[in-house]
Amino acid sequence: MEFFFDPQSVAVIGASRTENRPGHNVLRNLVDLGYKGKIYPINPNINTLLGLPVFPSIEAIPDPVELVIIIIPTPLVPKILRDCAEKGVKGAVIITEGFAETGDAENAQLQLELKQIVNETGIRVLGPGTMGIVNLQKNFTSSYVDFKGLQTTGNITFIAQSGIFTGGLVRYFATYDIPVSRIISLGNKIDVDDADILNFLAKDAQTRVIASYLEGISDGKRFITAARNISPQKPVIVLKGGTTIAGVRAANSHTGSLAVDNDIFNAVVKQTGLVRVETLTDLFETARAFSITPLLPRGPRLAIITYSGCLGVLSSDTALKLGLQLATFSTETSEKIHEVVFDRKFGANPVDTYPSTLKSGNERVFTTALDTVLNDENVDGAILTVWGDEKPDEKPFSPKIRDIILHHQKNGKITIIPVLGEKLGIERERKFFEDSGIITTIFADQAIQIYKNLYQYNKYKQSKELLH
Amino acid sequence: MEFFFDPQSVAVIGASRTENRPGHNVLRNLVDLGYKGKIYPINPNINTLLGLPVFPSIEAIPDPVELVIIIIPTPLVPKILRDCAEKGVKGAVIITEGFAETGDAENAQLQLELKQIVNETGIRVLGPGTMGIVNLQKNFTSSYVDFKGLQTTGNITFIAQSGIFTGGLVRYFATYDIPVSRIISLGNKIDVDDADILNFLAKDAQTRVIASYLEGISDGKRFITAARNISPQKPVIVLKGGTTIAGVRAANSHTGSLAVDNDIFNAVVKQTGLVRVETLTDLFETARAFSITPLLPRGPRLAIITYSGCLGVLSSDTALKLGLQLATFSTETSEKIHEVVFDRKFGANPVDTYPSTLKSGNERVFTTALDTVLNDENVDGAILTVWGDEKPDEKPFSPKIRDIILHHQKNGKITIIPVLGEKLGIERERKFFEDSGIITTIFADQAIQIYKNLYQYNKYKQSKELLH
Repeated sequence: MEFFFDPQSVAVIGASRTENRPGHNVLRNLVDLGYKGKIYPINPNINTLLGLPVFPSIEAIPDPVELVIIIIPTPLVPKILRDCAEKGVKGAVIITEGFAETGDAENAQLQLELKQIVNETGIRVLGPGTMGIVNLQKNFTSSYVDFKGLQTTGNITFIAQSGIFTGGLVRYFATYDIPVSRIISLGNKIDVDDADILNFLAKDAQTRVIASYLEGISDGKRFITAARNISPQKPVIVLKGGTTIAGVRAANSHTGSLAVDNDIFNAVVKQTGLVRVETLTDLFETARAFSITPLLPRGPRLAIITYSGCLGVLSSDTALKLGLQLATFSTETSEKIHEVVFDRKFGANPVDTYPSTLKSGNERVFTTALDTVLNDENVDGAILTVWGDEKPDEKPFSPKIRDIILHHQKNGKITIIPVLGEKLGIERERKFFEDSGIITTIFADQAIQIYKNLYQYNKYKQSKELLH
Repeated sequence: MEFFFDPQSVAVIGASRTENRPGHNVLRNLVDLGYKGKIYPINPNINTLLGLPVFPSIEAIPDPVELVIIIIPTPLVPKILRDCAEKGVKGAVIITEGFAETGDAENAQLQLELKQIVNETGIRVLGPGTMGIVNLQKNFTSSYVDFKGLQTTGNITFIAQSGIFTGGLVRYFATYDIPVSRIISLGNKIDVDDADILNFLAKDAQTRVIASYLEGISDGKRFITAARNISPQKPVIVLKGGTTIAGVRAANSHTGSLAVDNDIFNAVVKQTGLVRVETLTDLFETARAFSITPLLPRGPRLAIITYSGCLGVLSSDTALKLGLQLATFSTETSEKIHEVVFDRKFGANPVDTYPSTLKSGNERVFTTALDTVLNDENVDGAILTVWGDEKPDEKPFSPKIRDIILHHQKNGKITIIPVLGEKLGIERERKFFEDSGIITTIFADQAIQIYKNLYQYNKYKQSKELLH
């Protein structure tokens, strides 16, 4: 599968002179990226393109070609794919759409032909209807989207049947600091499917976290085997489309996916340790969290420290609704907290730091409370809301808090930091903590949702480790 | 109640020389705001403060005083409150904490004394333990928080028992463009409570939308009457804290609130037309949506137009999960859409504009699809995801789309615009549409949640109008 991500040589079949056409932009991307392998544009009507010599056909290329990217009219694809297989090409990325997903019998027949060629010749096919792969760490892409500004040092690999991540959301990833490693669009999955990709990613050093959008599963057994294989090593977060009758109908005409019953899918999730999320936002935030630190929460008993009684109440509600627990502090812990926090709860959970901070000082209250609860054996982890205020000196709220968190994080006591306050202050604090491997959010409920997702994954992971 | 928001004169009892103390910052805020009424700082140990003459006591002020703000040690408050009542003061904002919420018998007794003074003298009291009121449209505040940058032209009034909105979140409102009108912190509610505030806001020209965080309800009957009175005129969005056993416990030690059973509260919500939300983010986004346009969706049958099959599937799921419906287009509508959108769904709902846009052009596809579905009598409203791309000319995606939306919006066919793409593009498009009174979000699921909240409110409102 490596040749789909980092081929020695690539031919673009259907390279186009017209700017902003997919057949043009795929080639431009390869050139702009400084892709190190050989590039062969193919188009019988042109001689040169973007400074490269153009070939009339795949057969006309004198040297071997490892990968082809196909962007030509639908009816022509089977013939060309066969030519590629005969040439000894290892893999084909078929961007062309208009096959089985159209619901048209003739087009479905064309897709069957592609499948037959795969079976007969052994050429591997991604698609058809894929939007390609983005793999900037290797300066390679088979996609025609604009990837300018995309982080190239991330460890999250995105997979989707559709082109949502390689298309619509690449600009989002690039400008909202999502630390992407690779992006993969699967298309109609006549050959390469989720299971193949998961098996490949299990051994892929560039990938530590997988975030996936899927509608249908083509081969349930292979998918479950692949997911069970990768999950104990790397978290696979899944957003499932088509969970209502309207969604199923839409999915069917989108990727030709058949319905997977929601209960069956939940059973698969449980068996395989997949982390299921409900929205794109949750998918991104959970993936970001896993990517920030490989350390995972050891248990469900949360300590909540906040500067707002309201946030304490809402956080308690959220924790319980998500199946987590509010830790019961030891008497010693409560007494120690009560030395700096003066409220009627006498140091009980949740800890409300305001207005005691006015008397005891911000840093003393926050660090005492946090270190004390994390030292309590009844506590598994913490949610600590800090101020993200504007400051003339631009210094972070508290390096001491960071140090306390990092100290306890090694023992599986994870602290997540919601930062509320002013936009610039929020950005400053989030960057400060995340640069050190500490997960942050803006609101506490998001933090607790993430804690729950990470903890649930860890529970699965540990249950598997016990078996070995 | 007007004197709590826009008093003729105000005394600050416990004015302090020490910067950043509440007793100092309340006064500084009044001076910085250019409050037009008379300001009387009171402190027996100082002569002048921030250029103002300081009085030793309330009795020492020669003129009448309409409102006092009290920030003195807890045990001294009852005596001072009585002095104020004798002086003829109409209202007192008691910022001082440490009463019944401490759980201490002596402190609870002090709170009872305050209540007695209210009963005997008729002076109105906000608090104790309030963080005051922010009312920048009148250059007035009884709060000590930093309100720099807060929009003063908004139409949303925030209410909370706690100081979350007047304290922790003022900086958030100021920098995330939440169009605030007034912010009210109620504290322990010994006198002025939610019902009083709702009754006042019903007649308040500055307020069109109410966003409220509440833990307990002090007088259920009065609350229900007030909510039923205001709801048909102005939406009241409510986030309820304390819906789990842990949350109830936290709420009890936060504001001394007693539990309100979740089912009972839901019954209250249904009876009164309150719009209940589950998170702070939902509270803000729903309030912002109501504030952007007074127009409301007429029905549950949604048309979904998106450039991503994945978003179409997820949006269909979200709509159905939230109790909305996917509109069934008329044959005429589908045929007209199919003239510009070539997919196997032949113009069915959801409409997937990509890659047909490559052939038919972005604007033609989007405007044709939108105008066609909104002209269909089977459609009540639309969710239209647009690109928020970077553009050198910084021009909006399509003024034509805006015009189509505004045309249909008058007939109760509301369109909400999720904008996905690049950060700057997203911000540009959101501003463009919102400046015209069109609601936007980033993700489609948020848009559908908002549509549902707005529609649910409109259903209640219309059922009330039918009775008249």
